[in-house]
Amino acid sequence: MDRAPIHHRFGRRILMIGFGCIGQGVLPLLLRHIEMRPEQVRVLSRRGDPQGMAHAQGVRCDQVELRPDNLRSELLPRLAPGDLVLNLSVNVSSTALIALCAEVGALYLDTCIEPWDGGYTDSRLSAAQRSNYALREEALALHGCKPGPTALLTHGANPGLVSYFVKQALLHIARDTATPAGPPVGREAWAGLAQRLGVRVIHIAERDWQHRAAGHPARHPGEFVNTWSVEGFVDEACHQPAELGWGTHERHLPADAHHHDAGCRASVYLSRPGAATRVRSWTPLAGPQHAFLVTHAEAISIADHLTLGDPLRPSFRPTVHYAYRPCDDAVLSLQEVAAREWRFPAEGRVLKDDIDGSGIDELGVLLMGHAKGAYWYGSRLSTAQARQLCPHNSATSLQVTAAVMAGAVWVMRHPQLGIVEPDDLPHDEMLDLARPYLGDMLGVYTDWTPIVDRPWLFDEDIDREDPWQFKNFRVT
Amino acid sequence: MDRAPIHHRFGRRILMIGFGCIGQGVLPLLLRHIEMRPEQVRVLSRRGDPQGMAHAQGVRCDQVELRPDNLRSELLPRLAPGDLVLNLSVNVSSTALIALCAEVGALYLDTCIEPWDGGYTDSRLSAAQRSNYALREEALALHGCKPGPTALLTHGANPGLVSYFVKQALLHIARDTATPAGPPVGREAWAGLAQRLGVRVIHIAERDWQHRAAGHPARHPGEFVNTWSVEGFVDEACHQPAELGWGTHERHLPADAHHHDAGCRASVYLSRPGAATRVRSWTPLAGPQHAFLVTHAEAISIADHLTLGDPLRPSFRPTVHYAYRPCDDAVLSLQEVAAREWRFPAEGRVLKDDIDGSGIDELGVLLMGHAKGAYWYGSRLSTAQARQLCPHNSATSLQVTAAVMAGAVWVMRHPQLGIVEPDDLPHDEMLDLARPYLGDMLGVYTDWTPIVDRPWLFDEDIDREDPWQFKNFRVT
Repeated sequence: MDRAPIHHRFGRRILMIGFGCIGQGVLPLLLRHIEMRPEQVRVLSRRGDPQGMAHAQGVRCDQVELRPDNLRSELLPRLAPGDLVLNLSVNVSSTALIALCAEVGALYLDTCIEPWDGGYTDSRLSAAQRSNYALREEALALHGCKPGPTALLTHGANPGLVSYFVKQALLHIARDTATPAGPPVGREAWAGLAQRLGVRVIHIAERDWQHRAAGHPARHPGEFVNTWSVEGFVDEACHQPAELGWGTHERHLPADAHHHDAGCRASVYLSRPGAATRVRSWTPLAGPQHAFLVTHAEAISIADHLTLGDPLRPSFRPTVHYAYRPCDDAVLSLQEVAAREWRFPAEGRVLKDDIDGSGIDELGVLLMGHAKGAYWYGSRLSTAQARQLCPHNSATSLQVTAAVMAGAVWVMRHPQLGIVEPDDLPHDEMLDLARPYLGDMLGVYTDWTPIVDRPWLFDEDIDREDPWQFKNFRVT
Repeated sequence: MDRAPIHHRFGRRILMIGFGCIGQGVLPLLLRHIEMRPEQVRVLSRRGDPQGMAHAQGVRCDQVELRPDNLRSELLPRLAPGDLVLNLSVNVSSTALIALCAEVGALYLDTCIEPWDGGYTDSRLSAAQRSNYALREEALALHGCKPGPTALLTHGANPGLVSYFVKQALLHIARDTATPAGPPVGREAWAGLAQRLGVRVIHIAERDWQHRAAGHPARHPGEFVNTWSVEGFVDEACHQPAELGWGTHERHLPADAHHHDAGCRASVYLSRPGAATRVRSWTPLAGPQHAFLVTHAEAISIADHLTLGDPLRPSFRPTVHYAYRPCDDAVLSLQEVAAREWRFPAEGRVLKDDIDGSGIDELGVLLMGHAKGAYWYGSRLSTAQARQLCPHNSATSLQVTAAVMAGAVWVMRHPQLGIVEPDDLPHDEMLDLARPYLGDMLGVYTDWTPIVDRPWLFDEDIDREDPWQFKNFRVT
């Protein structure tokens, strides 16, 4: 970019909580696209700023670990009405922060609805209670304080951008099948479009092709290596149950699936973690791949927003879930955690500067069941591109930080909307903000289905009448 | 070794079929320990001797691909009574070769009972027909021609050496639990010892820690990287059904398990490949690990030989199976083959000279259920050690080639025993022959069981009364 556009002029302060790979990566983007002085940003981090990254940009970082007992005392002196809290941490309760922001009159944005430390591994809680469904319902229930300062939930790449990818993909499919499409206004219009197009299943279909550059030490046994937060990934993949928005076309509820007995009812959870739940999926570079059905907020929010009719007896809803193939080192790391019966790994390493530049993160949505079969739409970004676009980023982090920056701009522009999700925001405006950082935006049709080439040498329980049944995707 | 001992003086010829990583690795061992001239060895290989390895040792290699229609015409002119056929190939029928050897009066040894090319992927055959059980029954049925030239089946590392490891481990456990042990003579005595010790489950528990040395190209998508034959591994792991010797203590026959309706009845097969069948297992360096239950001849032969009573209603038999954790690259390669619904990979690479010397192959047997819990006994060999012990070998190949050399010596010493398996041979004599090439022979007790640390965050179907039930090992 020759000259970065200023998207907003902000006179208040940003309080950034957490300074891991996302916090570090988003800071230059905020200072680039939001007109404000570095002194208006303050970082709170349990590890401080050991590499001096915040300091080098003129931003002060206080080493603070937020807990239930110090949340008010640490935050109240640092917050004023109109300030923005960017929650980019793990282990700090989103609902506690949102409530405090509402009390103060501060704006809020996170990339994941987090519980307090230990909330994912409290074995006194049921799987249902540790689900993203429960966390989302709890956060949405804070709506009681609306109208209030805007709190934008789960606005990273996924959850976050992918909700916009879904809408854009629906419009592309409508265009390519000559289906009248609006433009749709409101959730019922979008759900109606999905229904008319015949969309039955939506995967958030990601393949992380990034890998260690030559010369950097190999993963050693017991070490969890990932391209983003090890703690965040282990919690969602190994400690929370697998969750998926449950489509109205599904005829075979899995034996390990459970409905919730309150709330939006858009999703079910499985009595097992996502790292133990594999599905057949597809990305343009991988072709068919096995991916992990890791729980994510977007699986629930997209399914909820695309539901038509009574939530208890909906007339339409697609099946929606994350189908994630992490980088090779993370796949091998997950296997070790599984063999240790899901206990946290002894050590973690987040690859960033040691990623080979050629590595790509393919992050998109795969819409299936319509007249043209399946359509993948998303971002193909290499780490070399990411580094050129913004310092302190890999492909994985930039897809997230671009969304955080875009979300922060939007929240500043719309400060009094209460609690909102990506699915409530205008997809075109949000994509315009993020797109410069997403590398190649690609739309590809494929005739792949999860029953292609099956069965071969072994009998398999396949529903041949409808390839898009979840039982056909699941790897057993 | 200062001076390699000569184990046998051989006046006839060796015809080696196949010249992959095992053929290449065993040639120097044969010429070292068997008194014979290189001209007495002839190699037949479908790929010839492109690197000149045979030629450099004075051994002639003919480029020949053996098929059903040219087997007699290619072999009869090259074979005379008393010669030894070393079948180290894939895709050449073991039973066809054994029958031909019996006709000629030639000795025979293989490391795997192979069908003709395509036998593993002929979808007209049932899983039962493609099983190692069926291949073994077919080979043992050739016993009709006994007394005849000795044909030693499945004599590599595993199958092969591990049958001796099991007997040695039984003696160690007897010693350490002050159980009178004989020495046992004959299969009933060994089975009786296993029963008295309370052994319920035996894993052939292997962890391949070898990895590419720095500077060698990374695995690329679509490439299957392994430390031994890619074709051999893909067939047994992806095309044959998972198979296991089925113990008399088992109370829960899996829904996907099937008994055979003829033969020794020692094993069952699952209606899925081993690469889709994971089990909890343990090795000294790995600790708890998830491994693949890949079918192997030893799972059936060891279980068969340790059976007491009527095969249809046995009074004792342990559960026996392979629990293999291949090298990291092979694990990732297997996932790709799975995603392609088990089709052969586009490309294969066998790591040998490009293995980092520090990499170790941990190959042992894990005997479980006795008074001291679980006992792992086996070989811990690094590739650096292997290279020092014998050129053209990695840790994985040397464990096999040492066994092939030992088996060749034994066959030459006992040329008129008809068809035999490792379980029929004297374990102490065979271990003495192979041990110089096995690195550190290690025996380790552990209190690990497959239900340690379970359940934690999710409900699990566990048999708490008997930790050694197969259902507790299986990863679902």
